[in-house]
Amino acid sequence: MNRLFAVVVFAGVPLVIAGAFLNWSDFLMFILCCISIIGLSGYIGRATESLAIVSGPRVGGLLNATFGNAVELIISIFTLKAGMVGIVLASLTGSVLGNLLLVLGLSFFAGGIKYKRQNFSLHDAQYNSGLLIFAIIIAFVIPEVFSTSMDSKTTFNLSIGIAIVLIALYLAGLFFKLVTHRGVFTSSDNKEGEVEEEVPEWTKKKSILVLLLSTVAVAFVSEQLVHTFEMLGSKFGWTELFIGVIIVAIVGNAAEHVSAVTMAVKNKMDVSVEIAVGSTLQVAMFVAPVLVIISIFMPNQMALVFTIPELVAMVAASFLVINLCNDGESNWFEGLILFSAYIIMGIGFFLL
Amino acid sequence: MNRLFAVVVFAGVPLVIAGAFLNWSDFLMFILCCISIIGLSGYIGRATESLAIVSGPRVGGLLNATFGNAVELIISIFTLKAGMVGIVLASLTGSVLGNLLLVLGLSFFAGGIKYKRQNFSLHDAQYNSGLLIFAIIIAFVIPEVFSTSMDSKTTFNLSIGIAIVLIALYLAGLFFKLVTHRGVFTSSDNKEGEVEEEVPEWTKKKSILVLLLSTVAVAFVSEQLVHTFEMLGSKFGWTELFIGVIIVAIVGNAAEHVSAVTMAVKNKMDVSVEIAVGSTLQVAMFVAPVLVIISIFMPNQMALVFTIPELVAMVAASFLVINLCNDGESNWFEGLILFSAYIIMGIGFFLL
Amino acid sequence: MNRLFAVVVFAGVPLVIAGAFLNWSDFLMFILCCISIIGLSGYIGRATESLAIVSGPRVGGLLNATFGNAVELIISIFTLKAGMVGIVLASLTGSVLGNLLLVLGLSFFAGGIKYKRQNFSLHDAQYNSGLLIFAIIIAFVIPEVFSTSMDSKTTFNLSIGIAIVLIALYLAGLFFKLVTHRGVFTSSDNKEGEVEEEVPEWTKKKSILVLLLSTVAVAFVSEQLVHTFEMLGSKFGWTELFIGVIIVAIVGNAAEHVSAVTMAVKNKMDVSVEIAVGSTLQVAMFVAPVLVIISIFMPNQMALVFTIPELVAMVAASFLVINLCNDGESNWFEGLILFSAYIIMGIGFFLL
Repeated sequence: MNRLFAVVVFAGVPLVIAGAFLNWSDFLMFILCCISIIGLSGYIGRATESLAIVSGPRVGGLLNATFGNAVELIISIFTLKAGMVGIVLASLTGSVLGNLLLVLGLSFFAGGIKYKRQNFSLHDAQYNSGLLIFAIIIAFVIPEVFSTSMDSKTTFNLSIGIAIVLIALYLAGLFFKLVTHRGVFTSSDNKEGEVEEEVPEWTKKKSILVLLLSTVAVAFVSEQLVHTFEMLGSKFGWTELFIGVIIVAIVGNAAEHVSAVTMAVKNKMDVSVEIAVGSTLQVAMFVAPVLVIISIFMPNQMALVFTIPELVAMVAASFLVINLCNDGESNWFEGLILFSAYIIMGIGFFLL
Repeated sequence: MNRLFAVVVFAGVPLVIAGAFLNWSDFLMFILCCISIIGLSGYIGRATESLAIVSGPRVGGLLNATFGNAVELIISIFTLKAGMVGIVLASLTGSVLGNLLLVLGLSFFAGGIKYKRQNFSLHDAQYNSGLLIFAIIIAFVIPEVFSTSMDSKTTFNLSIGIAIVLIALYLAGLFFKLVTHRGVFTSSDNKEGEVEEEVPEWTKKKSILVLLLSTVAVAFVSEQLVHTFEMLGSKFGWTELFIGVIIVAIVGNAAEHVSAVTMAVKNKMDVSVEIAVGSTLQVAMFVAPVLVIISIFMPNQMALVFTIPELVAMVAASFLVINLCNDGESNWFEGLILFSAYIIMGIGFFLL
Repeated sequence: MNRLFAVVVFAGVPLVIAGAFLNWSDFLMFILCCISIIGLSGYIGRATESLAIVSGPRVGGLLNATFGNAVELIISIFTLKAGMVGIVLASLTGSVLGNLLLVLGLSFFAGGIKYKRQNFSLHDAQYNSGLLIFAIIIAFVIPEVFSTSMDSKTTFNLSIGIAIVLIALYLAGLFFKLVTHRGVFTSSDNKEGEVEEEVPEWTKKKSILVLLLSTVAVAFVSEQLVHTFEMLGSKFGWTELFIGVIIVAIVGNAAEHVSAVTMAVKNKMDVSVEIAVGSTLQVAMFVAPVLVIISIFMPNQMALVFTIPELVAMVAASFLVINLCNDGESNWFEGLILFSAYIIMGIGFFLL
């Protein structure tokens, strides 16, 4: 498996670089980019796992979410620079739906095939669900509803205000988790014995190096991938919304995906949930508001106003995840419910 | 009480048959049908109870929900054949609202009058609430929201896709409950002593026979009842929506009603909740999607698009039930809350 | 601190009375009224606290909520008499948002600064969240959604019906809490030792006298305050909606505010939650429906139909509070989440 990932990355990335300079066909580039990203995700997953063993599950989860979303932030900034606000909002939606339904769903399912019942921290789940409601059902819903009787300038001002509140609360949340309440909610039934016997694959130094190189490579490849999206629209008849919500989400979150499922199969459901929901929160409370603020200096300003289908899909997904997580337990059927919800939304966005 | 039921059934059903052939007045037929169904429901309740004692609470609950909804499926197919898609959707709504608010509400209330606090399985409640959110807030809301920017053909295609996902997940849920996780969540504090001293009223064979005969009779009588609905509209000024949502729901769910309340008074709240919420899930995840697929061959195709008041009422009812059930406990006041919600929605649909 | 309150009240109230007869400038009166109310709130808080020590946390909480909302009811009746239905609905909204987000948020935050984790009764939280969903998500949402296809007379009839159901359920809830289930859910880990060592500041008789006098004074001063609102609109460009939702809410709930935060800092989080959420429920289930019924005899009838932004804000706030309270625990970060939600809605209503 690891050998396959190595072949894919060391052949794929140079080919993408070559293709970018030699203007290979869009379809070939699309295939090459997707394969390379999946290969690179494997490296990111292994590096993160090594780091997670060294640093404990919470910091490991944070690392994962950070390295997954740096890619998204970079892609979105380039897209914003090109003036395509609609695709940025669609890919933010897709990121939320992909993490909440696809990544978490496959983690629950894959882990649940191996273990009858898996547990994760109830306190983390409650912390996450409070922020999910805040970010999606308040910070995203309010501008949508209020904007119908506002002009576009006022709507953008409201978005700026909400963006500042979101970022401030996100930083306060890190302060809460890492400083004032660090370890306060740690349960005594942590499988410490299990953790101790684990040996990281790579050293801390090597892990960080691999993480950095892979992230840079993913960023470069992802950008090439974005250029092929126009072709997907004209050749396969896919709408911008479907490309943003589904394709960008699957490929852009491949990193979180691989690590979350890997952790789930190893019965470290705490890390899987942290990756999937933590990544969602980072997109909603950090990437999205930062993009709103950056868009002040861009050709088209981006208000925090999604389309109604995008918003309803995110709200419904949040309610489902909050409900399935609030017992601190998962099984294969809960994973299948999440995955089925993703399929229904995928069909919807495809037909829209 | 049992003697009264016997009189009602053995006098009522022949009278309905006679009336159907002799074309008695609609008003008389309406009264006869309602009384007969309530009497038959008593038999169904007693038969199911006997079976439940033999087979345990979970299978007993499934039996109840199945025999209650077979009637609804048959009525709906006849209505669909007559091209009245609106009434079918209204009666599906009424079934969901009736089970969640009226049946569960009266069970909580009647049981709560006798017992200060009643308990039911927290794991079943969480399983049910996850599926409720999936079925109502995702599978029913998505086509509604997405259909506003779709033509009717695309909306029907989306409905077919969602119907297939719903049925597949419903079957997977049965597999989860009855095969892979059978008994996994059974708590050790089951009142086994209490169960053992119970003696079923009828033998297994007799129970099954009564169940089958009663179900056939309910189906026949219900069909006669539907024919009288036009009269209700013209004579009492009731709208189609009110007839579908309220009248069909009360009469059509009389079976679940009687058994659920009976079980609640006997402090078997597990069975009551299983009947009310399980029946809702069967309507939403099995009856409704099967009707969508059957409607391919019918004069008018039925997309899974409810009216906005119907959808909002179902979503609000789901949130209320999920919240009241998530502590695994009930009392008379929670029953009154559910019943009051039903009254408010009843007034709304009556005035609409 | 107490001396400051004394100065503010014994100087402020006479000045407001003088200003009312001498027609002082609106801006001066606005400042004087606000200061006087805050001072009076201090007295109400101390009197309620003394009574709470004598009568136990639950009755103490009820007293608080009652004396806070009597003021609101009186102001609303005067406003209704002047025909300004929109401002009454806006101030009801503001009361709900102010209690759920601002009062509860500051209580959680202030208490959380002092204590790492604070606990409150899980059973009371569940009782409250069931009623919150009933009142906001069913009783307020249904008329909004159904009214779009109703004429205004039918909408008002629907509102009357819902108002009667709300009041009946509110009274049934008091019967449940104080009669049939009094003490049923009391946990054994109540800090009884702590309670016993507390000495009330005032006797029962003096507390009641102070409560009554302060409430009368608050009512008088609040009415003067309302007269200055027109000036706020013309001078500062504040919309009616912003004045109703934000200004009336902050000043009108100052009493609950001071007592809730005071109790939180004393680690009596049970009382804080009872004040904030209990007050919300009293506004939604008692004050609002009573105003609907009173409006029959008023120049303009008040249907229970809020604007869409008002309704969405209340629904979103309810979901957030229910989620944050359902673990029976609070900390400073949960307080900050609630406060941030209030800020976002405040910006929204200000810009609307």
